[in-house]
Amino acid sequence: MKNKDKKLELIEIGTELIAVKGYNATGIDVILKQAGVPKGSFYNYFRSKEDFGLAIIDQFASQYDAKLSSFFDDYNVSPLNRMRNYFEHSLAHLTENQFTKGCLIGNLGQELADQNERFRERLEVIFQSWKTRFSACLVEAQEQGELGSDFDPEALADFILAGWEGSILRSKVMKSSESLKNFIDTLYLTVLRTT
Amino acid sequence: MKNKDKKLELIEIGTELIAVKGYNATGIDVILKQAGVPKGSFYNYFRSKEDFGLAIIDQFASQYDAKLSSFFDDYNVSPLNRMRNYFEHSLAHLTENQFTKGCLIGNLGQELADQNERFRERLEVIFQSWKTRFSACLVEAQEQGELGSDFDPEALADFILAGWEGSILRSKVMKSSESLKNFIDTLYLTVLRTT
Repeated sequence: MKNKDKKLELIEIGTELIAVKGYNATGIDVILKQAGVPKGSFYNYFRSKEDFGLAIIDQFASQYDAKLSSFFDDYNVSPLNRMRNYFEHSLAHLTENQFTKGCLIGNLGQELADQNERFRERLEVIFQSWKTRFSACLVEAQEQGELGSDFDPEALADFILAGWEGSILRSKVMKSSESLKNFIDTLYLTVLRTT
Repeated sequence: MKNKDKKLELIEIGTELIAVKGYNATGIDVILKQAGVPKGSFYNYFRSKEDFGLAIIDQFASQYDAKLSSFFDDYNVSPLNRMRNYFEHSLAHLTENQFTKGCLIGNLGQELADQNERFRERLEVIFQSWKTRFSACLVEAQEQGELGSDFDPEALADFILAGWEGSILRSKVMKSSESLKNFIDTLYLTVLRTT
């Protein structure tokens, strides 16, 4: 049990550091020191740095999934407003972090997609799961007459996911919420316009 | 003159390596070796690795600007089709590279925005210049009646730039043109629909 707690602590510290510095630039030693784990003990918890990185991704994805559920399964709200609530919540969260960190999955995708096939595959599965959230929400919006039936929900979900990831990148470089706010406003004023 | 050629060669080799491996993971020694420049001579060409990185960004931005001009200044084509031609060209280029490399400015923004203020500022200037290309094109489309006048061209340009950068990231992680093609199609079928 204690061993399991320590493993989780290593994952949490690793998540924070990798979010800021990236995967390659984050040394295991720093994480172990911060967790008070002796140098030689790392392999009691993880087989390799790669396995550690994958555990971080899995833990993040699982926690993020719960967050997504809290918005996308909120049936008191119309489908398109559920999605909007999620974007507004993320905007507040990114602003709170002063546009550092960005999106862990986007960051690692950018850094590792060409370097490590195991990472790339895992990250792609997570992106696909997010896309599925968006498309299911758009299908529901169509069923409820909130969104025109001439849209392909899969295509639109992919378009929205790309736009959101790109806006997070822009906010990181601009150190401003401008592109994030603009993405949400423009999306809802044009593509998702409900008149 | 020969010195200038060698400097350019170092920049070109550096651009290739940084596009694939990122800035931090690219060692100066490898670049010098590839260019046949003795280790100690690096500082004859650049004051620091940072200055070298900034020279790479400037060289890339300047070359990319010429490429953008070849599409956006092609007055034989309607404004919205000029932009579409640029996207289609980029799609072909990214496909040719098998979705490695991605966008150098996006990559470095992702990697360095939180680590180095000089890089962040320079990258943001380039993003802004691209946004200005897009918005000028959209203004022209409005003047020619190709695009409705109810759009804010600045906001739309920012939305399009974010979506395109996000699509490049998605193509890198998916190793597929799907998101890029989908971005272009969806953009032109929805926001930029010319009926």
